[in-house]
Amino acid sequence: MSYGPAADAGMAGFAADLWLDDGDYDWDANQQPFHGAGSVDEMLRSDGHRSLMAAGVAHFGGPLRIEVDGDRASAVNYSLIMRREDRRYYLWRVSAVRWDLERSESAWRVRRRVNRLLDETGAGSELFGTALKDLFPEGPT
Amino acid sequence: MSYGPAADAGMAGFAADLWLDDGDYDWDANQQPFHGAGSVDEMLRSDGHRSLMAAGVAHFGGPLRIEVDGDRASAVNYSLIMRREDRRYYLWRVSAVRWDLERSESAWRVRRRVNRLLDETGAGSELFGTALKDLFPEGPT
Amino acid sequence: MSYGPAADAGMAGFAADLWLDDGDYDWDANQQPFHGAGSVDEMLRSDGHRSLMAAGVAHFGGPLRIEVDGDRASAVNYSLIMRREDRRYYLWRVSAVRWDLERSESAWRVRRRVNRLLDETGAGSELFGTALKDLFPEGPT
Repeated sequence: MSYGPAADAGMAGFAADLWLDDGDYDWDANQQPFHGAGSVDEMLRSDGHRSLMAAGVAHFGGPLRIEVDGDRASAVNYSLIMRREDRRYYLWRVSAVRWDLERSESAWRVRRRVNRLLDETGAGSELFGTALKDLFPEGPT
Repeated sequence: MSYGPAADAGMAGFAADLWLDDGDYDWDANQQPFHGAGSVDEMLRSDGHRSLMAAGVAHFGGPLRIEVDGDRASAVNYSLIMRREDRRYYLWRVSAVRWDLERSESAWRVRRRVNRLLDETGAGSELFGTALKDLFPEGPT
Repeated sequence: MSYGPAADAGMAGFAADLWLDDGDYDWDANQQPFHGAGSVDEMLRSDGHRSLMAAGVAHFGGPLRIEVDGDRASAVNYSLIMRREDRRYYLWRVSAVRWDLERSESAWRVRRRVNRLLDETGAGSELFGTALKDLFPEGPT
């Protein structure tokens, strides 16, 4: 829940520190997954991210459905990216997200975050389906 | 929080299993409330739901304000349905939602979910008002 | 999480009671911050708020990142105001929000809520940055 506010504040280092050093951010707007917290930091310092911020943007994360198993946890939620235009905002990206987390010392860190658009390709829908079957093999609890 | 991802993944059975067998889904897009988990399953297998999914859709549920009373609980939140169009998404339905839940063995199940649009009819506004008075008769806690 | 539903239900007194009697609501659509629960009550009884409700509106609050310190707590989240138009909804305001809360008897109340648009002025971005540095001086936890 602090990733979005950090991204929108341009706090690249803070946002990157949510990841394990060798964690992944597998994001469909990119050709291949980001590997390592450093690549998250780099993305948030890029001209692309800076120009989103300059016009007005919100990297909104919805509430999480979390399953905790000792020092590991997995969760699903929605990510919405809203951009300012003509004194309103529009929904640019609406994605299915899966988080895999690990507890390291007292803090939880991201092992892997995967985002897929809920679009006509079915990629987001498939991500949610696979994640729910994986997290809840016996159905809802 | 798993209803939306299950609906968007087309996992009709999983989503329906969140309801009690004889639970209700009272949804204003329908002439009359769905009765029974089976009718939730049927709705999510319908051509209508399938065509939403084919174009890209998100059945997003907002964070819940929950009151737990032993093996029963009630909650309110917002439901947003976003649909893909022209490489963006638009907000098709924004609803007030009330959930009534029961604990059955170790799992919570839906006794009744009621959705009403926050529109010019005032139906969503009235649902929120009635629910807050019912859940918090003495004001906010 | 009950502020939005109360605002959308026109329950001005209920929403105002979430604030401490001398709490603040510092909202950028106004020239100066509201001071006191009474001014929240007054705003929600105004013609402006009533006309939003008549057309259909949602004062949606996103999930909170909360830090609790004894009888005080601070949190950040996003606020989205969605308005009905042409059988859809549009995103009118997307704001960064900081909440400062105090526990008074058994209930949490708002000492101060600050909203700033995530727009080209950078006000929302700055609010998130200041809040995260304040809440997490040593980085994410």
